[in-house]
Amino acid sequence: MAIEDYLTIAPQTDEIIETDAVIVGAGPVGLFQVFELGLLEIKAHVVDSLKMVGGQCMELYEHKPIYDIPALPVCTSRELTENLLKQIHPFGPQFHLGEEVTVVRKEEDGRFFVQTDKGTRFMTKTVFIAAGVGSFQPKRLSVPGIEKFEGTQLHYQVKDPELFYGKNIVICGGGDSALDWTLNLVGKAESVILLHRRDGFRAQSASVAKMRELCENWEMQFEVGQVSGFEEKDGKLTEIRVTGDDGVVRRMPLDHLLVFFGLTPKLGPIADWGLEIYRKQIVVDTEKFQTSIPGIFAVGDINTYPGKKKLILCGFHECALAAFAASEIVHPEKKTLLQYTTTSPKLHKVLGVETPTLD
Amino acid sequence: MAIEDYLTIAPQTDEIIETDAVIVGAGPVGLFQVFELGLLEIKAHVVDSLKMVGGQCMELYEHKPIYDIPALPVCTSRELTENLLKQIHPFGPQFHLGEEVTVVRKEEDGRFFVQTDKGTRFMTKTVFIAAGVGSFQPKRLSVPGIEKFEGTQLHYQVKDPELFYGKNIVICGGGDSALDWTLNLVGKAESVILLHRRDGFRAQSASVAKMRELCENWEMQFEVGQVSGFEEKDGKLTEIRVTGDDGVVRRMPLDHLLVFFGLTPKLGPIADWGLEIYRKQIVVDTEKFQTSIPGIFAVGDINTYPGKKKLILCGFHECALAAFAASEIVHPEKKTLLQYTTTSPKLHKVLGVETPTLD
Repeated sequence: MAIEDYLTIAPQTDEIIETDAVIVGAGPVGLFQVFELGLLEIKAHVVDSLKMVGGQCMELYEHKPIYDIPALPVCTSRELTENLLKQIHPFGPQFHLGEEVTVVRKEEDGRFFVQTDKGTRFMTKTVFIAAGVGSFQPKRLSVPGIEKFEGTQLHYQVKDPELFYGKNIVICGGGDSALDWTLNLVGKAESVILLHRRDGFRAQSASVAKMRELCENWEMQFEVGQVSGFEEKDGKLTEIRVTGDDGVVRRMPLDHLLVFFGLTPKLGPIADWGLEIYRKQIVVDTEKFQTSIPGIFAVGDINTYPGKKKLILCGFHECALAAFAASEIVHPEKKTLLQYTTTSPKLHKVLGVETPTLD
Repeated sequence: MAIEDYLTIAPQTDEIIETDAVIVGAGPVGLFQVFELGLLEIKAHVVDSLKMVGGQCMELYEHKPIYDIPALPVCTSRELTENLLKQIHPFGPQFHLGEEVTVVRKEEDGRFFVQTDKGTRFMTKTVFIAAGVGSFQPKRLSVPGIEKFEGTQLHYQVKDPELFYGKNIVICGGGDSALDWTLNLVGKAESVILLHRRDGFRAQSASVAKMRELCENWEMQFEVGQVSGFEEKDGKLTEIRVTGDDGVVRRMPLDHLLVFFGLTPKLGPIADWGLEIYRKQIVVDTEKFQTSIPGIFAVGDINTYPGKKKLILCGFHECALAAFAASEIVHPEKKTLLQYTTTSPKLHKVLGVETPTLD
């Protein structure tokens, strides 16, 4: 089975999408939230800042075995993700991948306005935060004041390489991204300096060897040191100051600074939605897994409550109870009864399966 | 895979078995409790009043599909049970089946004395009640005073059929058990009367046809009616009074009365262990899933707390948190850390699997 067979990517639209639920996060818990909502006839859109489903565990452990999913003695993250996608397929969830939810705002009618960094907008009755450890964001340079050049002369990712052609650039970092862009830009940029805090690299050794060869041929420079300050003129970054491991500060003129220090999980915009937070976790109750804002639920690794363990199987439980609580908001007119998928003809209809004859 | 391949039946012993944990109930949640305890190096014995593992759902739905086990889009109760047995196999749980736990008593040293109706005895540091809806017990005849003949002349199950040979017996019920014993005892008993509240049966039609044939041949009688009273003499049951659907009361002399009204789940002896009970459910907290007696935990359908849903996947979560709480009792000297089965070499050792090389 291919993941793509079970994944419905929502089309881009300028219209505001009206829905019952927006799930923030497409990891295992976010996916299972679709299932528990679906059983209660609550339709969901799923947004994830990563470009694929499966979340942190697909990102970090795609092919490594997991042993503690109940009744699955062993599975990889990929198999877990595939199984969950298959399980939620009857409910037709719409996915919005590679988009980060930036705004969640309660409206006067009790619904929530939700917006992503790509401009996708929702009006939803409920929000489920299943964002795990948060979104993976580039580690920033810790030089006070330099952040004002972000997006113009200071870059944490490369959107358009041609911006650097014919320019003097400095690249910071010792991993694959730093080395790959160094090798890519030598010969196209006017000059390339690779700057790393030590003379040792996490990057592939073939890339490092190639870089050293370019240095020997005077096509680029490698320097050991860290950015400790900068100079500007007329609002433009003109040079950085680099402190070497000998303690000496050197000046390094440049047009662009590219920084590749790796990704780190951050709560990100979620911190600004007005939710009660304790030690970077969202505080929830254990009856509904609801946050301090009614109608916003938090499930999985991102929430906290007495006894909390960051286990996928605990997230599954939280999804179930949160779904029942959400049903009271989405379907206030009807009483939500617990039914069993083994015996309920209604759930069989919702799941699109046949009701077995009773014996 | 056969269930037997993964099931270790404990040998009968007169000795008191010393253990870390006794789990009461071998349904899906009881089985998964073994796993969560095993990861924390807590050894468990499992006791169930049924003669097989899998609990209520194996008893009622062995071959019916379940759709809401996370990451298992569809499985039968048998498959669920098999998977769980395979998953807990590394931890070598000892099973005591067909035994009902009758006594749970806290000792002065803080441990618990546990005894079954078959005389098996344990001294354990913790107890986990995963008894689902309780044990399945035969529905009783609701005739005041008649219970004193239970086990002598009034029978809800047949232990020794020869007891009835040459006797006058009345069998109550309309299901398979009632019909099967009727057919079995005709010709061996002196006389057999089948008594059912209506002239219609849940039993297999072939059995019903055979019974009607025996009636036509004067080898037995079938009567429509319900037991409404009885007579006794010298402490012996001599006759029952039967109210027919015409309202007329008839006398029916007999030596033995066999009643097969089906099984109904009952809390049973658990009600006498001094635990806080609310509406036949055991009250627990949501941090440890501990009962009102520290060291006794309750997981799965038998417990209650705000938001409780009787779902297998919720029971799995409860097992995990209860295991961490139990670890503080079983291993008070060490701090229990949450580790992941994907990355922890220690858990790999406990599970008996290889640690993959990290990339």
